[in-house]
Amino acid sequence: MVDDTIVAIATPFGAGSIAIVRLSGKNSYNIALNLTKKSSLTPRYSHLSKLYNSSLELIDEAIVIYFKAPHSFTAEDVVEFQCHGGFIVANMIVNECLKNGARMANSGEFTKRAFLNGRIDLTKAEAIAKLIESKNEFGAKILARQLNGELKSEIEKFREQLIEILAYIEVTIDYAEDDLPLSVHEDIVKKLQSLVERFNKIVAISSKKDGIFDGFKVCIVGKPNVGKSSLLNKLLNYDRAIVSNYAGTTRDTIEENLKIGTHLVKIVDTAGIRQTDEHVEKVGIERTLNAIKEADIIVAMFDYSSKLDNEDTEILNIISDFQTNKDVIFVLNKSDLPKMIDIDENLECLSVSCKQDISNLIDKLNSTLSKYEHSEDIILISNRQIEIVKSVSMTIESSLELLENGEFELFSYHINESIQLISSISKPYNYDEMLDKMFSSFCLGK
Amino acid sequence: MVDDTIVAIATPFGAGSIAIVRLSGKNSYNIALNLTKKSSLTPRYSHLSKLYNSSLELIDEAIVIYFKAPHSFTAEDVVEFQCHGGFIVANMIVNECLKNGARMANSGEFTKRAFLNGRIDLTKAEAIAKLIESKNEFGAKILARQLNGELKSEIEKFREQLIEILAYIEVTIDYAEDDLPLSVHEDIVKKLQSLVERFNKIVAISSKKDGIFDGFKVCIVGKPNVGKSSLLNKLLNYDRAIVSNYAGTTRDTIEENLKIGTHLVKIVDTAGIRQTDEHVEKVGIERTLNAIKEADIIVAMFDYSSKLDNEDTEILNIISDFQTNKDVIFVLNKSDLPKMIDIDENLECLSVSCKQDISNLIDKLNSTLSKYEHSEDIILISNRQIEIVKSVSMTIESSLELLENGEFELFSYHINESIQLISSISKPYNYDEMLDKMFSSFCLGK
Repeated sequence: MVDDTIVAIATPFGAGSIAIVRLSGKNSYNIALNLTKKSSLTPRYSHLSKLYNSSLELIDEAIVIYFKAPHSFTAEDVVEFQCHGGFIVANMIVNECLKNGARMANSGEFTKRAFLNGRIDLTKAEAIAKLIESKNEFGAKILARQLNGELKSEIEKFREQLIEILAYIEVTIDYAEDDLPLSVHEDIVKKLQSLVERFNKIVAISSKKDGIFDGFKVCIVGKPNVGKSSLLNKLLNYDRAIVSNYAGTTRDTIEENLKIGTHLVKIVDTAGIRQTDEHVEKVGIERTLNAIKEADIIVAMFDYSSKLDNEDTEILNIISDFQTNKDVIFVLNKSDLPKMIDIDENLECLSVSCKQDISNLIDKLNSTLSKYEHSEDIILISNRQIEIVKSVSMTIESSLELLENGEFELFSYHINESIQLISSISKPYNYDEMLDKMFSSFCLGK
Repeated sequence: MVDDTIVAIATPFGAGSIAIVRLSGKNSYNIALNLTKKSSLTPRYSHLSKLYNSSLELIDEAIVIYFKAPHSFTAEDVVEFQCHGGFIVANMIVNECLKNGARMANSGEFTKRAFLNGRIDLTKAEAIAKLIESKNEFGAKILARQLNGELKSEIEKFREQLIEILAYIEVTIDYAEDDLPLSVHEDIVKKLQSLVERFNKIVAISSKKDGIFDGFKVCIVGKPNVGKSSLLNKLLNYDRAIVSNYAGTTRDTIEENLKIGTHLVKIVDTAGIRQTDEHVEKVGIERTLNAIKEADIIVAMFDYSSKLDNEDTEILNIISDFQTNKDVIFVLNKSDLPKMIDIDENLECLSVSCKQDISNLIDKLNSTLSKYEHSEDIILISNRQIEIVKSVSMTIESSLELLENGEFELFSYHINESIQLISSISKPYNYDEMLDKMFSSFCLGK
C-alpha cells in the first residue's frame, strides 16, 4: 500500500463548463475537510460546497464527492472536486491540495494504484488507457467489455486448459509410460494444436487493432484528374458527424477522418502522382505504394469515359501485388459520360459519378468495414498483449516436439512457462520496470 | 418552465481521464434509468453503474449522479454521467440520450435554464461564463465571490438608496415645497453625487477587467540590441508555473504569458523597431505606439553602458505622453558594464543586467501588479454591466439639474429609470434578445 496522497486534474485542459480535481490517498479526506471547512463528508454523496484557500479566501463553489476506501477507483480514499471549468479554478484547487500535503500525481498513477491495490488487473488498466484514446465506436465497445473483465476471463480459460494438460503430464511422468492409453497423448496434442490455432487467429485479428480503435485506413489511388479529390470531397460531404476531423499530416500524405455509417475511417489522400518528368513520377509511385501498404482498404479509381492508359496499367500492376491480403474496391468514375473504358470484364467494378452519386461506393465501404468490425473472438489491445500471446503460441508449438520425443519433463517445463506467460497478460509477477513503463504512457489524472 | 430535456458534454474536448455528460429536464431521470437499466437512482448518490445502448451493448461503466429538481444547477432534474474520457465514450452516451428523446443543448443553455428557473441571477450567470475563461488567480477569486452573490448584493444596496431618494421625492411632490426643510434637498443632492462618484470609480476600476481576468499587459520598449529579447527570456525563465503559455500572435506583436508572483501577465514583445530606412522606422514607431497604448505597464529600456542616442530620445518622447495614466518602469540594462548613460538624474531608474540579475525589476513588477490587484470595491465583469452603470451614472447626473430647477416629477421619472437600469444588472425585464445573445457566448455544456 502506497502511503502518500496524490492529486491531479482529471479532465482535459481547455475551456469547458466543468473540471474535476481528484485526490487519492489516506490524507484525501482531511484535505477535503480543510478546503470545504466541513466537519464531515458523507461517502458518495454529492455535496455542494464552497472551497476556501489557506487565507480563507473563497476559491469556488463545487460539487465534492468522497469515495471511502476501498470503494473507490484506486481502492484508497478518493475525493473529487467538480469545479467550474477553465484553466484557473482547478489549478487553484490543486495548489491548495499541494499546500495541504498532497503531491502531484504522475501520469497513470491513479490507475497504477488501482492495479497495485488489486482493484483492477492489467487488462482493465490497458483498456482504460486505450478507451481514452480510442476514436471508433466498435473499438470503444470492445474496450467497455474488457473493462468488464471479458479479456481477463478468456485468458483465465486458456490458463485452465494449460493447467489441465500439465496435470495429465505430471501423471505421465509419475507413472510408467505404457500404463496410460495412447489416446491421452493424442488428446493432448490435439488440444495444444487447437490452442495454437486459436492464439494465431487472435493475433491475426488483433493486428487490425489500430484500425479498430483509431479508424481503418482507406487509400484512394488513381492517375491525376481521375477524380480522387472529387471523391474525397464527396465523402467528406457525406459525413455529417458532429466532430470528425482529426486531420493530421503524416509524411507526404494527408489523412482525413470521417465516419461511414458508425465506422470511423481515415482517408489517405495520395495526390502525389505527377507525370512532369520521370523522377517525380517515381516519387509519386513510391508514395502510392507506401499508402497502399498501410491501408486496410484500397479504392482504385479509373476513368469510365476513356480507355486505359499506361498510368492506369501501372496502377493495376501495383495493386495486383496486394489483392490477396487487402480489400480492393475498383471504381470507374465519370459514369455520367459515355463509357469508353476497356478494363477486364471479369474485374468487379463499381461505376460511380463523383459529380452525381457515389451511394453504391458508400454501401460497399460500409459492408467492407462491417466485416472488419464483426469479430466473434477477443481482441488484444496492446502490443504487450500481442507479444505475450505470440510467445505462448511459439512455446506451445516447440513443446509439441518434446512430447512426441517422450521428453516429458522438458515438455512440462515448457507448458509451465506458457502458463506463466499467459497469466502475465493480466497479472505480471515482478515486472516493476514494465509497470512503470506501461503506466507512464497514461494521461495525467488517470 | 421549459419542457424538453437537453444534453451536452460538459468537459473540454480532448484526452483526459474523465468526461462528464450532463442531462437537464424532466426526462433526465427516465433516460438515466434506461441507460443504466436500474429501477431507481438515489438523489445525489454516486452510483457506479454500467451504461448500455438501445441494443443492450455495454457502452461504459460510469459514475451516475441524479440531482433531483429543484436541488440542481438548473433547478430541473439533472443527471450527470462521469464516464471514461476521450472522444468516443461521451459521444456514445450523448447519442443514446438523443435516441431517448433528449436534444443537444445550445451554448449556455444549462446556465440559461438556471437563470430562467430563478436559481441564479444574471450577475452569477456572467460570473460563471467569465470564470471558465479567466486565467488569473485574482480575477478568479473576484468571480468566486460574485458567484457567492457579492455583486448582486452591492447592486441591491444601490437600488435601495435610490428607492429611498425616490420616496423622499414622492413626499416632496405630494406636499407643498416649502413645508420641507431645505436640508432634505441638500441631503439628496449629496447622496446622488456620492453615488455618481462611486459609480464612476467602479467603472474606472472595471476598465481594467481584461487585465484582472486575463492578465495585465506589460510592454517592453527600447531600441534594437538594448536587451529586450534577453529580458523576455530572463522573465520566461523566471516563470516556473506548470502551464503558462497561451502564446498568441496579435497583429505584428508577439504575446507571451507568464506568472510574476501570483500575477498572470502578458508580455508584449515589440521587436519591431528597425532603422534600415526611414519608412521601416516609421512602421516600428507606430507598432511601438500601439503596444504602449494597449499596455498596462511599460518597461522602457536603455543602455547603461552608452550615452543616450536619437532613438532613445525618441522613445523617451513617446513615453512622456503616456506617463500620466500608465505605469512606466525605466530600466537601464547592462549594469555589469561601466556606466556611460547620461539620462536625467531625477528619473527613477532600475539598473539591471539581463545577463546576471533582474530581481529588482521582478520586485518592481510584482508590487505594481499587486497595486492593480488590490481593489476594495466591486468590479464589473462584462461590458454589459459597465454600460449599465455608465447609463445609471449619466441618468443621475442629468437628474440633478432637474432637482435644482424644482422639476420634481421629471426628476422622479429619471430616478425611477436609474432604479430600473441598475436592477437590470441582475434581473433584466423583458430583454429576450439580450438573454439569447448573452448565453450563446457561453461554451457548450454550460
